[in-house]
Amino acid sequence: MKLYYRPGSCAMGPFVVLEDVGADFDAIKVDDDTLYSEDYRKVNPRNQVPSLIDDAGEIMTESVAIMLWAANRYESDLIPAPDSWDYGRMVMCLNFMASQEHPAFAMYLRPFRFHDDESVQADLKERGRTNWHAAMERTNGWAEQGGGWLVGGKMTLADILAWIHARWGLRVEPKTDAAYPALWALARRVEERPSVRRVIEKSGLTPLE
Amino acid sequence: MKLYYRPGSCAMGPFVVLEDVGADFDAIKVDDDTLYSEDYRKVNPRNQVPSLIDDAGEIMTESVAIMLWAANRYESDLIPAPDSWDYGRMVMCLNFMASQEHPAFAMYLRPFRFHDDESVQADLKERGRTNWHAAMERTNGWAEQGGGWLVGGKMTLADILAWIHARWGLRVEPKTDAAYPALWALARRVEERPSVRRVIEKSGLTPLE
Repeated sequence: MKLYYRPGSCAMGPFVVLEDVGADFDAIKVDDDTLYSEDYRKVNPRNQVPSLIDDAGEIMTESVAIMLWAANRYESDLIPAPDSWDYGRMVMCLNFMASQEHPAFAMYLRPFRFHDDESVQADLKERGRTNWHAAMERTNGWAEQGGGWLVGGKMTLADILAWIHARWGLRVEPKTDAAYPALWALARRVEERPSVRRVIEKSGLTPLE
Repeated sequence: MKLYYRPGSCAMGPFVVLEDVGADFDAIKVDDDTLYSEDYRKVNPRNQVPSLIDDAGEIMTESVAIMLWAANRYESDLIPAPDSWDYGRMVMCLNFMASQEHPAFAMYLRPFRFHDDESVQADLKERGRTNWHAAMERTNGWAEQGGGWLVGGKMTLADILAWIHARWGLRVEPKTDAAYPALWALARRVEERPSVRRVIEKSGLTPLE
């Protein structure tokens, strides 16, 4: 099984889960040349990470899908029982981050993907920043209400994605720790998990201070 | 249990699943006045549907989360076993549609949310259209490869969301049936399911011709 990822991207989510459950897989760092190659396009036509390829050559993309599949498949303690309300709440958090928080960050980071004019790009960047803050505020609220974790009073897949997004937050708002204290404390706790520390080291990231 | 929805929106997904499994719930149609009211904002701070509120007052948002929770909770035949590869593939399709196809449609439909200048809005609308087509092409490819359904050769939650998006497609590309024949055939098959027909009638939509 192969996981294609980029350090710091949302593909860190699947990387952590596969590492955490002790799955047998190779993590392959994708550089720009690979990402936009014809070969990788056959795996992922949107030139995105993550992509998971199993030993039969079957492909799975989308971070949330790979995380949910891996946690269910390997009976991880990072996932509530699938028929529980907490499971739904966890997917709610994951999907809010993936479908609303992530696109806001994308518009902040890469406004040139939406318009060619530089002054318009500056406006779009600002709109992305505003939407990002609105999304982070909601996620921070969940962390506050949840007593330090997003769902069910314990660490789940949702906290792993929140940790990744908190790190992205530093690029939008350097004082992420002050602006979103509950979320920031959560991100630090996520980094205490041994599998997360191993993935940080393997992917060459710097731990949070 | 109460489900807040708008006819034709992605909230139709949870509506169909709850109807399909025979859950005890009230479907509440949300008009514009309600959507932007202070009361509804407490339920959903982004003024979006769907929102599900259980009898204890607990809230769940995000279509994919409610669909997955309800299908698992009520042991629906619309969901593969959580530890199967097909389950991951199903979530992949759902999340691709929710986090990439849906935002493209949003930019096409409501470019004024991203920029105030009308000529820029026209450009953004066009960018939304292009991204929408790229996403629909991928979804149509899955329907082709899957022998008429997106995953596992049978109808799942992913097909329900694909059906909703195919209907949206008519607003972007009136010849949706010709442009995406496999997806269109899938959407018609989804409408053959009795629960889907009931939800179409209850929400006041027109069946596909």
